[in-house]
Amino acid sequence: MNEFDFIDHLRRLSESRKHSTRVLTGIGDDAAIISESAGKELVFTTDLLVEDVDFYSDATSARHLGHKALAVSLSDVAAMGARPLWSFLSIGLTPDRWNSDFRDRFFAGYFELADRFAVTLSGGDVSESKVIVIDSIVLGEADAGAAVKRSGARAGDQIYVTGNLGGAAAGLKLIEMGMRVSAPHGVADGFASQSDDDAIQSLLLRQLRPQPRVGWGIVLGEQRLATSMIDISDGLSSDLNHLCRESNVGAVIEAASIPLDADVKRLCGRRALDPLALALHGGEDFELIFTVAPEDISRLPKKVDGVSITRIGEIDNLAGSTRIRERDRLWDLHPRGFSHFDD
Amino acid sequence: MNEFDFIDHLRRLSESRKHSTRVLTGIGDDAAIISESAGKELVFTTDLLVEDVDFYSDATSARHLGHKALAVSLSDVAAMGARPLWSFLSIGLTPDRWNSDFRDRFFAGYFELADRFAVTLSGGDVSESKVIVIDSIVLGEADAGAAVKRSGARAGDQIYVTGNLGGAAAGLKLIEMGMRVSAPHGVADGFASQSDDDAIQSLLLRQLRPQPRVGWGIVLGEQRLATSMIDISDGLSSDLNHLCRESNVGAVIEAASIPLDADVKRLCGRRALDPLALALHGGEDFELIFTVAPEDISRLPKKVDGVSITRIGEIDNLAGSTRIRERDRLWDLHPRGFSHFDD
Repeated sequence: MNEFDFIDHLRRLSESRKHSTRVLTGIGDDAAIISESAGKELVFTTDLLVEDVDFYSDATSARHLGHKALAVSLSDVAAMGARPLWSFLSIGLTPDRWNSDFRDRFFAGYFELADRFAVTLSGGDVSESKVIVIDSIVLGEADAGAAVKRSGARAGDQIYVTGNLGGAAAGLKLIEMGMRVSAPHGVADGFASQSDDDAIQSLLLRQLRPQPRVGWGIVLGEQRLATSMIDISDGLSSDLNHLCRESNVGAVIEAASIPLDADVKRLCGRRALDPLALALHGGEDFELIFTVAPEDISRLPKKVDGVSITRIGEIDNLAGSTRIRERDRLWDLHPRGFSHFDD
Repeated sequence: MNEFDFIDHLRRLSESRKHSTRVLTGIGDDAAIISESAGKELVFTTDLLVEDVDFYSDATSARHLGHKALAVSLSDVAAMGARPLWSFLSIGLTPDRWNSDFRDRFFAGYFELADRFAVTLSGGDVSESKVIVIDSIVLGEADAGAAVKRSGARAGDQIYVTGNLGGAAAGLKLIEMGMRVSAPHGVADGFASQSDDDAIQSLLLRQLRPQPRVGWGIVLGEQRLATSMIDISDGLSSDLNHLCRESNVGAVIEAASIPLDADVKRLCGRRALDPLALALHGGEDFELIFTVAPEDISRLPKKVDGVSITRIGEIDNLAGSTRIRERDRLWDLHPRGFSHFDD
């Protein structure tokens, strides 16, 4: 199957599950055509994933990689309070991956997640490459003025986070220790029980198959509940810092309020890994941090899609300063998340 | 400079030259926000360029690469008859490229072309990579119903092409022979004169710094002159075949009418390279092939932005069949352009 045949194949897969009548021309032309609407704003994000930098092929299945490629961009659209509608995918594969079932398993994972949120794959590009490269693009939409930026937080706003934190970073550490999905080893290393195995599997999947908070994003945006929002890709300390810088405000968070992943507490506490440090500085949890004006707190739903939220702190006027209170001490919280190309 | 500093730098560069007031949030948030308009259609394209597959770093300058990355996507938007407005760029660089002036020279070439067509860089992503990977994304816009698809050609429509053909393929052959921009060698190999040197430089630039036909695209779309259109990325034979397949028609083109690049005729004829074969099957000329209904031919402008067009043939009803007439013989014209991952 050459690239044109494969693009035809994707086109049939995409058209058979078309969720949007507004894609007037999808895969199969020089460009896709999408009809615009008055009073709407387009929200656009792209995420580049490179083998051996952003993921390790020996640690992830093709199916999980297809899921994660879409998930990271869905998370960005959620962080804007927008509804994801259309996606595009540029993918470069090595010839051996092209000629194996990698391709089909990758798209199985991709389409499974796209279908769950009614997102229509509408185009992209294919190339050969020495390493796998994936550029994942998602377009979403919000009512005019409803998209939630990083820059809207004001002093007195309360800071919330969805779900719980630290799981993805712990999963990455387990991968680096040699653990794999469905084939955990290192049992002699202190992970003996069945429930430990379950915890390991769960943490590996937090890293390899993150669940974007699409439902929360839509609710917070459509009901105009959040004054600012960002997703946790680099780490809570980094991403909260980004949000504060863009809003020209500061923040104090409470260490005791940070929702720690239960599996992280269970496993990492025993291994001299500080669960709080993983939750603060570990990236890729793909939870949402958002701020809410005091008068809107009563309108917040308790759960969306089964995911709850936790109040972790408050915005103040100390521009650019993020601090964390632990018992009766207040520490500076420096961003220590992930960055390509450190200084 | 780490990735966050660099993204801030790009953000300032982008904001200082902002061509579009409809980008409500560009670089610096989880996603870009662009306001939609009633009665408009969004045209969206993405092109993945991978080092050692789609370009050779020892043969292209960073500045030309930045130009070409944007040019190939502008060409796709032109092929839809749309006006390019916004761009996004995902780029993976090796650490040595990141820490050199490669990055700044790449963006100098990119912004120079973006400014020429008033395109606003509105977001993207940065990663580390073992080879350079670039995903170039351009969004354009057309009035509702005015975007020109590949599928609108009808029997009797006349086939036109912008500019002239074969130059980019000849340039690639020169690169493969070791020729470089501003430093031609192989003089002892028959390329002695100053005017030969000029021809070589010109052909190298056709390959390395293609000129997208943005003006023609806008005119053909806005004035509803073209019934179908495609750009020549894979090669005239391949791309005309794509157009005929999508339109469910056939085509006959006239060999004597194909506009051959003058430098190709000058240099290649002497070297047992058939200029017509380069024009038919060589890719990356980034000219536009389009079809015009007989009653609209008189409305066609002679030139746009100094670029003329040539009538090369006619659409007929032999679905999926492309033929070429040379003197009094009619040959089947099989697609022989570029494809990743051949069967």
